[in-house]
Amino acid sequence: MRNLKIKVVIPVATDHYDAKVKEDFEKTVRPGTEISVVSLKRGPFRIESIYDKGFAVPFMLEVMKEAEEEGYDAIVIFCACDVGLVAAKELLTIPVVGMAESSMHLAATLGEKFSVLAPTKEGVLMYRERARLYKLEDRLASVRDVNIQVADLDKDITDLKQRLLDVGKKCIHDGADVIIFGCGGIRGVREWLQLQLGVPVIEPGLVAVRTAEMLVDLNLTHSMMTFMKPLEKPIYLYESYK
Amino acid sequence: MRNLKIKVVIPVATDHYDAKVKEDFEKTVRPGTEISVVSLKRGPFRIESIYDKGFAVPFMLEVMKEAEEEGYDAIVIFCACDVGLVAAKELLTIPVVGMAESSMHLAATLGEKFSVLAPTKEGVLMYRERARLYKLEDRLASVRDVNIQVADLDKDITDLKQRLLDVGKKCIHDGADVIIFGCGGIRGVREWLQLQLGVPVIEPGLVAVRTAEMLVDLNLTHSMMTFMKPLEKPIYLYESYK
Amino acid sequence: MRNLKIKVVIPVATDHYDAKVKEDFEKTVRPGTEISVVSLKRGPFRIESIYDKGFAVPFMLEVMKEAEEEGYDAIVIFCACDVGLVAAKELLTIPVVGMAESSMHLAATLGEKFSVLAPTKEGVLMYRERARLYKLEDRLASVRDVNIQVADLDKDITDLKQRLLDVGKKCIHDGADVIIFGCGGIRGVREWLQLQLGVPVIEPGLVAVRTAEMLVDLNLTHSMMTFMKPLEKPIYLYESYK
Amino acid sequence: MRNLKIKVVIPVATDHYDAKVKEDFEKTVRPGTEISVVSLKRGPFRIESIYDKGFAVPFMLEVMKEAEEEGYDAIVIFCACDVGLVAAKELLTIPVVGMAESSMHLAATLGEKFSVLAPTKEGVLMYRERARLYKLEDRLASVRDVNIQVADLDKDITDLKQRLLDVGKKCIHDGADVIIFGCGGIRGVREWLQLQLGVPVIEPGLVAVRTAEMLVDLNLTHSMMTFMKPLEKPIYLYESYK
Amino acid sequence: MRNLKIKVVIPVATDHYDAKVKEDFEKTVRPGTEISVVSLKRGPFRIESIYDKGFAVPFMLEVMKEAEEEGYDAIVIFCACDVGLVAAKELLTIPVVGMAESSMHLAATLGEKFSVLAPTKEGVLMYRERARLYKLEDRLASVRDVNIQVADLDKDITDLKQRLLDVGKKCIHDGADVIIFGCGGIRGVREWLQLQLGVPVIEPGLVAVRTAEMLVDLNLTHSMMTFMKPLEKPIYLYESYK
Amino acid sequence: MRNLKIKVVIPVATDHYDAKVKEDFEKTVRPGTEISVVSLKRGPFRIESIYDKGFAVPFMLEVMKEAEEEGYDAIVIFCACDVGLVAAKELLTIPVVGMAESSMHLAATLGEKFSVLAPTKEGVLMYRERARLYKLEDRLASVRDVNIQVADLDKDITDLKQRLLDVGKKCIHDGADVIIFGCGGIRGVREWLQLQLGVPVIEPGLVAVRTAEMLVDLNLTHSMMTFMKPLEKPIYLYESYK
Repeated sequence: MRNLKIKVVIPVATDHYDAKVKEDFEKTVRPGTEISVVSLKRGPFRIESIYDKGFAVPFMLEVMKEAEEEGYDAIVIFCACDVGLVAAKELLTIPVVGMAESSMHLAATLGEKFSVLAPTKEGVLMYRERARLYKLEDRLASVRDVNIQVADLDKDITDLKQRLLDVGKKCIHDGADVIIFGCGGIRGVREWLQLQLGVPVIEPGLVAVRTAEMLVDLNLTHSMMTFMKPLEKPIYLYESYK
Repeated sequence: MRNLKIKVVIPVATDHYDAKVKEDFEKTVRPGTEISVVSLKRGPFRIESIYDKGFAVPFMLEVMKEAEEEGYDAIVIFCACDVGLVAAKELLTIPVVGMAESSMHLAATLGEKFSVLAPTKEGVLMYRERARLYKLEDRLASVRDVNIQVADLDKDITDLKQRLLDVGKKCIHDGADVIIFGCGGIRGVREWLQLQLGVPVIEPGLVAVRTAEMLVDLNLTHSMMTFMKPLEKPIYLYESYK
Repeated sequence: MRNLKIKVVIPVATDHYDAKVKEDFEKTVRPGTEISVVSLKRGPFRIESIYDKGFAVPFMLEVMKEAEEEGYDAIVIFCACDVGLVAAKELLTIPVVGMAESSMHLAATLGEKFSVLAPTKEGVLMYRERARLYKLEDRLASVRDVNIQVADLDKDITDLKQRLLDVGKKCIHDGADVIIFGCGGIRGVREWLQLQLGVPVIEPGLVAVRTAEMLVDLNLTHSMMTFMKPLEKPIYLYESYK
Repeated sequence: MRNLKIKVVIPVATDHYDAKVKEDFEKTVRPGTEISVVSLKRGPFRIESIYDKGFAVPFMLEVMKEAEEEGYDAIVIFCACDVGLVAAKELLTIPVVGMAESSMHLAATLGEKFSVLAPTKEGVLMYRERARLYKLEDRLASVRDVNIQVADLDKDITDLKQRLLDVGKKCIHDGADVIIFGCGGIRGVREWLQLQLGVPVIEPGLVAVRTAEMLVDLNLTHSMMTFMKPLEKPIYLYESYK
Repeated sequence: MRNLKIKVVIPVATDHYDAKVKEDFEKTVRPGTEISVVSLKRGPFRIESIYDKGFAVPFMLEVMKEAEEEGYDAIVIFCACDVGLVAAKELLTIPVVGMAESSMHLAATLGEKFSVLAPTKEGVLMYRERARLYKLEDRLASVRDVNIQVADLDKDITDLKQRLLDVGKKCIHDGADVIIFGCGGIRGVREWLQLQLGVPVIEPGLVAVRTAEMLVDLNLTHSMMTFMKPLEKPIYLYESYK
Repeated sequence: MRNLKIKVVIPVATDHYDAKVKEDFEKTVRPGTEISVVSLKRGPFRIESIYDKGFAVPFMLEVMKEAEEEGYDAIVIFCACDVGLVAAKELLTIPVVGMAESSMHLAATLGEKFSVLAPTKEGVLMYRERARLYKLEDRLASVRDVNIQVADLDKDITDLKQRLLDVGKKCIHDGADVIIFGCGGIRGVREWLQLQLGVPVIEPGLVAVRTAEMLVDLNLTHSMMTFMKPLEKPIYLYESYK
C-alpha cells in the first residue's frame, strides 16, 4: 500500500476552513495518505445556492488541473453540493470525489431513505438537484434547513446542536432513517447527533476522503468512456476576448 | 398585447453568432416583440462539454442580471445545454428560458421519445444530464453526434445535412420519433431534415424564444418558492479576495 | 408570419362557453391568428369524470376531422382533461393541443411539482390519469377539488376565489410550487390567485392556444411515426349496423 | 360457491365473435358460472387504434350499465386494449375486468418482461398506452405486430402461426420472457406457440374471465374511493341537445 | 376442466395452521381442486422478519420439490412475504404462487395504491422489500402494523378487528384505496373490515390459491427463460461437508 | 485510528477460498485491520442461483452472530449476490457489507451504467434482483455470463481472460461504462481487463472490505430504524420441532 497525496479543494474564496479541514481529514485517512488543502483566490465567499456555485467552478477547475499536474493521486471537492464535480471528471483522469455523491450512495446502503440537513433554505434546491442527478431521488426523504448561514455555523455550537436535533427529528418523521449533513461546516457534532437521533448521521467530508483513498488504492477512477476529455479551445477567464 | 423586450444571451466569448441569432429570432416572434442579443466578453469560445459550461456561468449571470435591471421582460439562454439556467432562475424574477428544457418538454408532447443530434461526442453527456435533471430521461431515446465541431457547423452545409440525415436515421432506430438539434449552431436545415426523416425536428432556439414570449404574455415566471433569491455575499470574480 | 386559423373544440353539448372562450383566446393570440370555437351537438352536458369523457369523443372526432378538412391550422381541445387527444392525433396531421398536456409540461419547467385545482372530487382521477399518461406523475404534488360543479363555477366568483385560495394553500402544503386550474370554466381569477399564493398559477386554455400557435408557426406537429393513421373501417355512430 | 353470471362485452358492431367467445369462455370457467356475450349495435366494426376505441365507449357503457341492472355479477371487456375500462369502473359497482390489465399483471408475475403480439402496427400505441397507464411500462419489452388486420386473423391459421412464431422470436430478442396476445381474435394457437417459443404465452381473454370469476367469488371489486360514481347530467347520445 | 392437486406450504415449524388453511382454501377453490397442506419439520416457529425467512427456505424447497415429484399441479406458499418464492420458481416447473406477489398485482388493478396491514413493526421491511422486488413500490401507500405478534392473532378477535379498523383508517389517510392483509393468520375478518372501511380488503391466501388454480387450468407457469434450473452441486443441509 | 477486526464470511460449504480471500484482503486493508475468514460447515458447495443462496442463509446467520459476539467490528459477506445481507442487518448492530451493494453503488459514481460479468447464465437473475432491490436497476446496463462454472474459474486463467474480454466488450455495447465482476472467484485479472477495456473494472470483494473498514472507522452502521431486531422465537435448524 503506497503513499498517497490527496488534494482537498474548498470552493470558496476564503482560507477560513483550510486548517480545520486538514485537521479533520488527517485524523480520518490511513497512514501514508497525505492531505493538502487549498481554497480559492477568486470565487464566492460561501456556497449557499446554485447561483453561488457558478462563481466557484472556473477557479476550482484551475486548481484541480494544477493538482493533477503536480502529481496528486485524487481530489476531494469539499462542498456538500459537489460544485464542479462533473466538469472535473471530464477534465481529469485522477479520481475526483464529491461529498454529496459519495455520501448519498453510502446512505442508500445504510437505510431506506436519507434526509439532508442544510444550513439555510436557499440551499435546499442544491441538494434536491444532486439527488436527482445521481438518480437517488427516490431515496431522498427530505431536505430541511437549520436556518443558520454557513458563515455562522461555528458561532454557537449549543444552538447548532439543538437545531440539528429538532430538525433531524422532523426528517425522521419525513421518512428518513439516515441523515447527511448538508455542509462541511457542520463539524464536531456528528457523534452526538447520531446518539440522540438513533439513526446513522453522515459527515460527508469524511466519507468523501475515505472514498478517494479507496479509489486510489484500488486503482479505480471515473469512466473515461462517459467523462470525455473536453475539446481544446480558447477560454477567456482573466481578460476579455477582444 | 403589449410590446416585449427579450434578451438573448449567447454564452460564448465571441460575437460570431449574434447577428444570425437576431435574424432568426426576429422572424420567429410576434409583432411587438423586440429581440436583443448579447454574447460574452469573457468565457469559453464554444460550449462543447460540461467543463466549457463552467467558464460561461459567472459572466452570463452578470449580463442576465443587467438585462433584468434594464427592463427586459424575459431571457433566452442560447445554448442547447441550458448553461446557467437554474442559477439564473434563482437570481432573476423575469422568465429565463433554456433551449433544452423548453424543447425537451415540447418534444415529449409530440411523440413518445426524442433523440438529440449533438455536434461532437464530447457533448453527449451534457444532454443526458439535462434530460435527467428535467426528469425526462425515460423520454430520451439517445444522444448521437454528427462529429462536427461547433465552430465548423456552418462550413459545409451539404455535408452537415448528409450527416444529420444519416445520424437521424440511427436515432429513429434507437426509438426516437422526434429529433431535437443539440446546438443553436445547426441552422437552416430543420425543414429539410423533417421532410427527409418524416418525424418532427425541433430547432430549440425557436421553441425557447416563443416560450419566453408566451410566459411574458401570460404573466408567468418560474416559482419563487423553489428558485429562491441567493443570500448576499462577497463574490470575487475580477480580482482576488486578498 | 402568416395568418392562422385555430379551431377550438369545446367537448360538451352546450354552447354556454363558446363566446367566453372565443373572447379569452382572441385576447391571448398574436395578430393574424383567427379563433373559431365549436361545441358539440351530441355528447355530455359537462365533463366531470372519465365516464363523461367517453360520450364526447366520437362527436369531437367528427368536428375535428371537419376542421382539418376546412383548412384549420391547428386544434385546441378546450377541456382540462384532454378528452380525445390521442385519438385526434391519430386522425389528424395538423397539431392538436390538449390543455392538460401543454400546461403540465409547462408547469414542469416553472417549478418542481404542480397541483391541479379541480372543480369536484369525481374528477380527480382524470387529472391523475393524465399525469401518469404523460409521464409527469412524479411532478404531480396533488389533485384537490374546490367542491363546485362545473356548471356552477361562474355563479359566485367571490366564493370561488375563496375556495381556490384555501385549497391552493393545501396544494402548496402538499409540495406544489405551481398550480394548474383543472377546468376551463375557472376564468378571471388567475392573476388574483397567483398574487395571493405567490406561486405561478396556470390557466391551461391560454397555454394551449399559445402552444398551438407556436407549433403552426414553427411548422411542427405530432409525430406520424407514433400517431398512425387509423385503418379504414365501418363505424356505426348514428344508426345500428344491421 | 354460488352460481355466477358474467357478461362479456365485445366492443365492436358485429356479432361475428359472439359465439366463439362464448364457447371459449364456457370451457374456461368453473361449474356454476354462466357466460353471456353481447356485442354492440353501434360502434366501430373493429378496434385497431385509439381512434376506433373512441367510437365504442358510449355504446359499451350502455350495455354494461344494463348488465349490472339485470343482475350480472361481473363484466369482462373482450378487447385487448381495455376500451372503456376506467369509465366502466366509475359507473359500476360490480367488477369490470379488462384483458390487458389482468393479463399484463399476471405476466409480470410469470417473468421479467412481456411483449404484446398485436395484429397491425396501427395498434401498437394502444398497448403501450395501457402499459403506461397500469404503471407496467418497465415490464413491457416491446409491442410488435404480425401485420394481419383483425378481420383476417382467422382466415389462414397456418400463416398466422408462422407470423406469431417469427415475431414472437423477435420479442424474445427484445427481452421478453412472456408473450401476451394483443387481440381476442388470436385464438386456438396459444398452446402451440407456447411450446414453440418455450415461454409462457397468454391468451388474455381467458385470464380476464377467470379473474372476473375470482373477484366475484372473493367478494372483491374495484375501489369506490378512487373510481367515484359520475355526477348526474344530461348526455345526448341518440339525438342533439337542441 | 380436469381435477387438480394444489400443495399449500406453510413455512413454519408448527402444524398449528394446517387445518384452518385447508378449511379456508377448500371453500375457495372450484370443484375438482384438491387441497393438501404441509408445514415444516424444521424452520422458524413463525415468520416475522427477513431473518426468520432465512431459516424456512431450505426446508420449504425440500417439501416443494417433493410435491412436484408427487404430481402436484401447483404450489401455494402460505406466507404473506413470499418466502422462498424465487428459489422455488428456479427449482420447479409447476406454478408456484406467492401471496404477496399475486395479491399486490391484483390490488393494483382494483385501485391506485394499496397498504399492507402487518402484525408487527419488525415485519414492515419484508413487505416493502416485496413491493420493490415486484416493481410495485409506486403502488404501495404504506405498511402499518397492528402490534400483535403472529402467534396471538387469533387470541382476541374483537381486539384484532378494532386494531385493523384503526390502522386501516390510517392507511387510507396514507393514500391507500385497497388494503392487503400482511399475514395469513389474519382470518375471518375480511368481509367485516371491507364493509367498515369502504375499500377492497384482500385476504392474500385466497387470491393465491385461486391464482394457482387459474394458472394450472390455463396451462401457464413461470418463464423458464428467466427462472433457470439451478446447476447441480453438493448441498450440505443435514450434516457438515467434512 | 484504532485496530479493527473484520470477519469475512464465505457462504459456501468448502474452505477452498479461505486462504486466497484472506491474502487478497490483507493486501487491501489499512495497517491495523485484521482479516479473519470463515466458510460454512453446512450449506451449498457453490452459489450460482437464488436457489443455492437459500441453503447458505441459516448457517451464515449463525457464524455472523458468533462473530459479533466475539467482538468483530464488521462483517463482509464474500459473495457477489449479497446472500443473507438484509437478514444479517436485522440481526446485527455491527456493519455488514455486501459485495454487490457496495460495488453497485460505487460503480454508479464512476459512470452512467454498469454491467455485471457473471460466471454462468443460471446466476443472471441474482444480479438483476440485487440491482432492483438496491434501486439501481436504471444503472444496470446488462448482466452477461462467461459460461464458466464457479468451481472452474481458476482452472484456466488465459481462457478466463479471453472470455472476460469478449463478454466485457458486449457489455460496453449494451451501454456499460463500468464493469463489476459477478463472483469473488474472478481474481487476479482486474488490472489487465481494465486496461484492455478502457473502463473501470470493479473487483467487488475489495470494495466491500474497504467499505466495511470505512464504516467502522467513521462509526457508522446500518439504520436500526429500518433493520429492526427480529422478535425472539424458537427456530429448529438442527432438529425437528417435534
